[in-house]
Amino acid sequence: MVKDKLWGGRFDTLTDKFVEEFNASVGVDARMYREDIAGSRAHAKMLGRQGILSDEDVKQILQGLNDIEADIERGEMQFTIALEDVHMNIESGLTAKIGDAGKRLHTARSRNDQVATDMRLYLRRRVDELLIRVYSLQRVLVTLAHEHADTIMPGFTHLQTAQPVTLGHHLLAYVEMLNRDAGRLADARRRMNVSPLGAAALAGTTFPIDRYFTARELRFDGPCHNSLDAVSDRDFVMELLSACAICAVHLSRFSEELILWMSAQFRFVELSDAFCTGSSIMPQKKNPDMPELVRGKTGRILGGLVAMLCTMKSLPLAYNKDMQEDKAAAFDACDQLEGCLRILAGMLPGMAVNKEAMREAAATGFSTATDLADALVRADVPFREAHAIVGKAVAYCIDAGIVLHDMDASACAAIDARLTADMVRALSVEACVAARNHVGGTAPAQVREQCARWKKRLEDVDA
Amino acid sequence: MVKDKLWGGRFDTLTDKFVEEFNASVGVDARMYREDIAGSRAHAKMLGRQGILSDEDVKQILQGLNDIEADIERGEMQFTIALEDVHMNIESGLTAKIGDAGKRLHTARSRNDQVATDMRLYLRRRVDELLIRVYSLQRVLVTLAHEHADTIMPGFTHLQTAQPVTLGHHLLAYVEMLNRDAGRLADARRRMNVSPLGAAALAGTTFPIDRYFTARELRFDGPCHNSLDAVSDRDFVMELLSACAICAVHLSRFSEELILWMSAQFRFVELSDAFCTGSSIMPQKKNPDMPELVRGKTGRILGGLVAMLCTMKSLPLAYNKDMQEDKAAAFDACDQLEGCLRILAGMLPGMAVNKEAMREAAATGFSTATDLADALVRADVPFREAHAIVGKAVAYCIDAGIVLHDMDASACAAIDARLTADMVRALSVEACVAARNHVGGTAPAQVREQCARWKKRLEDVDA
Amino acid sequence: MVKDKLWGGRFDTLTDKFVEEFNASVGVDARMYREDIAGSRAHAKMLGRQGILSDEDVKQILQGLNDIEADIERGEMQFTIALEDVHMNIESGLTAKIGDAGKRLHTARSRNDQVATDMRLYLRRRVDELLIRVYSLQRVLVTLAHEHADTIMPGFTHLQTAQPVTLGHHLLAYVEMLNRDAGRLADARRRMNVSPLGAAALAGTTFPIDRYFTARELRFDGPCHNSLDAVSDRDFVMELLSACAICAVHLSRFSEELILWMSAQFRFVELSDAFCTGSSIMPQKKNPDMPELVRGKTGRILGGLVAMLCTMKSLPLAYNKDMQEDKAAAFDACDQLEGCLRILAGMLPGMAVNKEAMREAAATGFSTATDLADALVRADVPFREAHAIVGKAVAYCIDAGIVLHDMDASACAAIDARLTADMVRALSVEACVAARNHVGGTAPAQVREQCARWKKRLEDVDA
Amino acid sequence: MVKDKLWGGRFDTLTDKFVEEFNASVGVDARMYREDIAGSRAHAKMLGRQGILSDEDVKQILQGLNDIEADIERGEMQFTIALEDVHMNIESGLTAKIGDAGKRLHTARSRNDQVATDMRLYLRRRVDELLIRVYSLQRVLVTLAHEHADTIMPGFTHLQTAQPVTLGHHLLAYVEMLNRDAGRLADARRRMNVSPLGAAALAGTTFPIDRYFTARELRFDGPCHNSLDAVSDRDFVMELLSACAICAVHLSRFSEELILWMSAQFRFVELSDAFCTGSSIMPQKKNPDMPELVRGKTGRILGGLVAMLCTMKSLPLAYNKDMQEDKAAAFDACDQLEGCLRILAGMLPGMAVNKEAMREAAATGFSTATDLADALVRADVPFREAHAIVGKAVAYCIDAGIVLHDMDASACAAIDARLTADMVRALSVEACVAARNHVGGTAPAQVREQCARWKKRLEDVDA
Repeated sequence: MVKDKLWGGRFDTLTDKFVEEFNASVGVDARMYREDIAGSRAHAKMLGRQGILSDEDVKQILQGLNDIEADIERGEMQFTIALEDVHMNIESGLTAKIGDAGKRLHTARSRNDQVATDMRLYLRRRVDELLIRVYSLQRVLVTLAHEHADTIMPGFTHLQTAQPVTLGHHLLAYVEMLNRDAGRLADARRRMNVSPLGAAALAGTTFPIDRYFTARELRFDGPCHNSLDAVSDRDFVMELLSACAICAVHLSRFSEELILWMSAQFRFVELSDAFCTGSSIMPQKKNPDMPELVRGKTGRILGGLVAMLCTMKSLPLAYNKDMQEDKAAAFDACDQLEGCLRILAGMLPGMAVNKEAMREAAATGFSTATDLADALVRADVPFREAHAIVGKAVAYCIDAGIVLHDMDASACAAIDARLTADMVRALSVEACVAARNHVGGTAPAQVREQCARWKKRLEDVDA
Repeated sequence: MVKDKLWGGRFDTLTDKFVEEFNASVGVDARMYREDIAGSRAHAKMLGRQGILSDEDVKQILQGLNDIEADIERGEMQFTIALEDVHMNIESGLTAKIGDAGKRLHTARSRNDQVATDMRLYLRRRVDELLIRVYSLQRVLVTLAHEHADTIMPGFTHLQTAQPVTLGHHLLAYVEMLNRDAGRLADARRRMNVSPLGAAALAGTTFPIDRYFTARELRFDGPCHNSLDAVSDRDFVMELLSACAICAVHLSRFSEELILWMSAQFRFVELSDAFCTGSSIMPQKKNPDMPELVRGKTGRILGGLVAMLCTMKSLPLAYNKDMQEDKAAAFDACDQLEGCLRILAGMLPGMAVNKEAMREAAATGFSTATDLADALVRADVPFREAHAIVGKAVAYCIDAGIVLHDMDASACAAIDARLTADMVRALSVEACVAARNHVGGTAPAQVREQCARWKKRLEDVDA
Repeated sequence: MVKDKLWGGRFDTLTDKFVEEFNASVGVDARMYREDIAGSRAHAKMLGRQGILSDEDVKQILQGLNDIEADIERGEMQFTIALEDVHMNIESGLTAKIGDAGKRLHTARSRNDQVATDMRLYLRRRVDELLIRVYSLQRVLVTLAHEHADTIMPGFTHLQTAQPVTLGHHLLAYVEMLNRDAGRLADARRRMNVSPLGAAALAGTTFPIDRYFTARELRFDGPCHNSLDAVSDRDFVMELLSACAICAVHLSRFSEELILWMSAQFRFVELSDAFCTGSSIMPQKKNPDMPELVRGKTGRILGGLVAMLCTMKSLPLAYNKDMQEDKAAAFDACDQLEGCLRILAGMLPGMAVNKEAMREAAATGFSTATDLADALVRADVPFREAHAIVGKAVAYCIDAGIVLHDMDASACAAIDARLTADMVRALSVEACVAARNHVGGTAPAQVREQCARWKKRLEDVDA
Repeated sequence: MVKDKLWGGRFDTLTDKFVEEFNASVGVDARMYREDIAGSRAHAKMLGRQGILSDEDVKQILQGLNDIEADIERGEMQFTIALEDVHMNIESGLTAKIGDAGKRLHTARSRNDQVATDMRLYLRRRVDELLIRVYSLQRVLVTLAHEHADTIMPGFTHLQTAQPVTLGHHLLAYVEMLNRDAGRLADARRRMNVSPLGAAALAGTTFPIDRYFTARELRFDGPCHNSLDAVSDRDFVMELLSACAICAVHLSRFSEELILWMSAQFRFVELSDAFCTGSSIMPQKKNPDMPELVRGKTGRILGGLVAMLCTMKSLPLAYNKDMQEDKAAAFDACDQLEGCLRILAGMLPGMAVNKEAMREAAATGFSTATDLADALVRADVPFREAHAIVGKAVAYCIDAGIVLHDMDASACAAIDARLTADMVRALSVEACVAARNHVGGTAPAQVREQCARWKKRLEDVDA
């Protein structure tokens, strides 16, 4: 039991137990202990350099912080809600260890700049971890894409067979999406990487602090230029959550496809047993639980973004307690997204691809019709007329129960004099994909080129 | 370590550790253990009555379930993520205790109807608890309103002083809002209170079950009429979250007002120290943390609603694993809203009201101008003209640095011949509020009448 | 060009053009003209009855309002943004027609109670229209369900074949969902159907008004009991939007299924050409645009709900201009949802069902495995063991390339002594669905019973 | 009346009128006509250069497109929903003008890449316009901040007086926020500025197109590298909406402050009449409608973001009709945010600042308490003890009804021997702000320095 709140000088009524619980954030923010300690180290060193604290005090503080960090990592630190948050718990622990020097640490600082610093440091680390997960998933996808540069599958629009594509090309579409995700995460990181330390409560401090020093110590790009903004800004949380939400949308799209492909109707892939579960009642079931969960988490991450935007809306400057809610939303989104990326990257290498089923599906549904229209255009038929002629040919084939390839010369002529049997005989899904051999096209040659480009880029990321 | 998943018959690959964690819900759903056991009890009894299980099996199962419930409440049950969820953990524990009979419990049941039953039972209980909290807050508000039936404060529109109102009247506005909240919660409860048990995986079962019996045992109003709907429906979660979100919006409005009223600029109220905190840097601060947190939680609850709606969107029938995410959203929203209601109900009785500051604010800002226009209307000036005349009088007073009450006869006449000194002399904030003495009006008499009505209704709720 | 704002008495600066546009709501709220006029009629009559206006004034006002309504319906009324909103446009038009009596209409009223009245009346009408659309779609579904009481299709969980169900049963699941939607809409209607008229700006009025009379005239259930709440409450918008969002989620689920069913992989249904479109490049395409659009609109309706909740959050009492944004969100959600309901009800009757494809899909994927486990249970094997035995049988069949039905006695015995050839021979999808003959089960007999129940209920709705 | 849909070759049923309306997007997308025509110009030129179209055809197409653009700008083009969208309307108009050449324009193109190109071009333009509005508002704020570099106001945390700050410093906090907004908009612009043209329906085309040429012509940074991604990606809409939502949150915070400051309780500012409106019932009212509307629009913009994320969630590749909903959300968010930025930039120059009220508010509420604690720290009292001593001093002053400045030596000594009368005498709000003279601090000198920095940067933007 703690006798007194650190800020309790003025107060004379004991805080009711439930209020204490409702108010406390330590259950959520304790996971930022490393960042809190790192921030205190930098602050203490700076106070020493500027002559605000004595060298002896600084020495004791640094030693004390080391000890506390070690205590926490050994699970020997008891966090208590009576001390509200990670900051007060650590400072109180420090003072218990080193006495007066501990009471001097908060000089020229406030919890407002302290928590903003911790959050930026913590989320910066989480972004770096997310980026590693994004790159890993990209690598898995590129490897798979290269393996399936020639694997033909139906390309869908409106979930209707449209034109044949290569599976490699399809997978690379997700590499592109993830690349933009990485870009958004990196941009969010850059914008969050400035130091609020020194903004104190909201207005700066009367002590001769050196904000550039603490910024450098903590590997920030520099100090925030406005103290009011420094403590009231949570853009970095909103922007990160937004980047997470868009990435989650991408993963939900891929998950939706895996669930479809895994169905008895598609049979395009089979996921490894390790990533599926069975049914408590139906012995034959093998459920794609992992992609379903990834798809389901998207709503949750999106909910976190909405929570944060809604919480920040209309708050006057500077710090308001509402902002304490930033942590639950941000931490959960990072945890969930990281889990989703990890699951997908782990699952894909063991996925069996049913090339026959894919090719068969690609070959039905008149997927080569566009190429027939293109052939007519090359024979100088205006595109809109070519489109109409092929439309009639498709209708004829459906009635006759045949495919375009089967039409004979008289059937062609009956539809339009410009349509020839040569044209229909040239149609094949292999020809279709091979012909789309320009940058961004689905041809195997293009897929290999893109894979090479991505491999190079992903190696550069490592370096 | 658990040797085998209950549904593992077909599988031959060991589930990877992280997949297990990602997949498991027991960390979240263990709190439904009472409902899970209650559902199993009802199911077992029904199986016995219908001759599907022997009486001996049923007896053992019931005894075993009692033992497990006692274990859990003593903290002696070890939930493990290897067993995924609360259902499998309890069934596994049961079989460990009683052997074969435990393996028979899942006859004519699936986890799909089981989890839907648990969720409905659990959320039904939470709704009942929320209703109690809503009524408590209403009681506190009505008591305070009665006490302040005569307390005059400025009524605001656009945060501009509009007309004087009574504080009692203002507080009763929130009683009305909470009444609608209670109505929505009750409606949600009614619609959720049907039994999915017996829907099995999705299609019903081949055993001769009695779904009316289990529904009665669990105090449901009856069984769901369609098994596919029974296992795929999460309307009750979405509707509950929506009722919570609207209630939270109300509490956020009240919190915003308390924060304003507590500011140095308003000084209308002072919250008890027990519900405020201080500053780590500014010794003079007394911060309205509780209303700020309540306001901040609104975003979080709203985020939970969005998460759930977004997760359910576009899911084909029947059960999909995405739906596992319903729990995190629903449980958190109930927890947060319950906390908010509890905090406000605890805080208001100790709030000091500064009647002088309120009355003074009500008397400035030309809050009686409408009544002057009304007086002109009674003297047969068309309302729009009266409005314009008083507009000019206000402009005159602002220039002259006086209030309407101070205008003399010549000043009145200079503005419009129909404006008289008698009219302006009759203006007072007391007269203003007293005159609005019709149903719904702000007059003290009306406030007392409404308080009496509410007291009666809230007593009926208790009975 | 309008010379003067109706509230312009005090102001001396001309309103800038863009401010005027930004501020004006008439572009959005003009569609409530009928409700605005109805409210004014009721108000004027009441003022006459209470002796606040002369009979002659009332007569002129009523005549003038009739004339304006006729003008608007003939398209001869010019709404202008200089007059901000529908209320001021109509009042200004009235005064232009009848002079001073027009200027008296606003006695004992404010735009704050006027707009709240208009919105409730307007949305009440829209709810009634939505209910009609919901019932229509239910009727279409019940008719189709009855027609397909015997049509067997695969029931899915996790989009994996689970057990056979009947299409009729599947369609009735949506009838249940829509029934809850209707319940939520009706509850929202009930809670919105109280009259704010007489609340005036926020505090009531000094005139001896009769709020019960105006409430009755406008077919409200009674007056709001608190004037501050009456003008600041937008629960009815939030609740309606929430009911719309949940309904939209249901329609998105059905749309997702139709899109799947329409794919070349499922081929369960074919939508009529009238509800599909083609491709501008691929002549063979027939795209399920209508269900896709319905699915897409779900996000939009959900966005409207979020907009409204977020806008109302933290607003102090009473009216604030932010609340003007309620209209765009509410009107759009009603329009979109009504369109979606209408499209689906129009599309389903012309949908061709491919029974063969459905039955074939139901017969594959070991959909009868649960029934085999149930047979073992009836032979006294504990369910969990039965589940494991069938799991092995399924694995055996997959290896052998056969179905359960094909297993001979020795194959059965090799798996478990209790598994017999009689048991596997009894398996058929027809037997599966027929056996689930309890309330809520998928058996054709149950489907017919439910259809009959729904037909009766939907007839009662009409009466 | 249009005889035939351009894609109607295969269809034989006339599209029902309501389906046509529900399906059509031309009511929303017609505003992209310039971009659609620009895209067609680039495409036609490229087809000519590559020998896919004859020079004569290209010439006719370019002339025809010019004519159509002129028609539209003169209001002489009739858009019809029978032709669905802006693309088909323009192509149909072109063919009506120039015959067969018009029918050739769609060679090697699909509406899928066409609409993606149009959207990127259109939103790129809107982002540029938004950036101009952001810079304008920043300029207004910097000018005002410079003017008020010395104006002292209370800095708030928790809406409680915390420490004095300068108004200039406060305004510059918003300049920082807007700077991040500009950064996010610019990042979104960069990521959207790649060309989908040439992706055709989803897989690329069989014609020898030059995607680099069209990209250059349209001032894109290059072509999208994956055709499936090119047509199915709407990241650029989600990212833009997210940047808009965060910016709107900033504007809502500023609006909230203006509304507070404009209240009778704060009286810090008075907005110009041109940006306020009056009341229809209360002649004295002057309502801050513009900031209220800006605050209210935040919900709407946030709703648009949610709509888009939710719509994109779980969509399989490539194009789905759901994506048509991107336009309503994106266009509305751009319109609303642009309006909000414009309104605020227009309103601030005419805002009257009440320096006396601000200073007076800053001087009350013990805003200098932190500085007294800092003085104790300089006298070697550990900060936590200093904090407690000042807490006691504040409590003493409240009881005694005095301010810190008024404490005499004995009063100081009674609290703590280390507290001296010199320390309290040195306290003043001017000293407080002047002392915070480090980077980011609130001192007038810092504000001037920051203003200079911003002026320079904003000039660079212009250049």
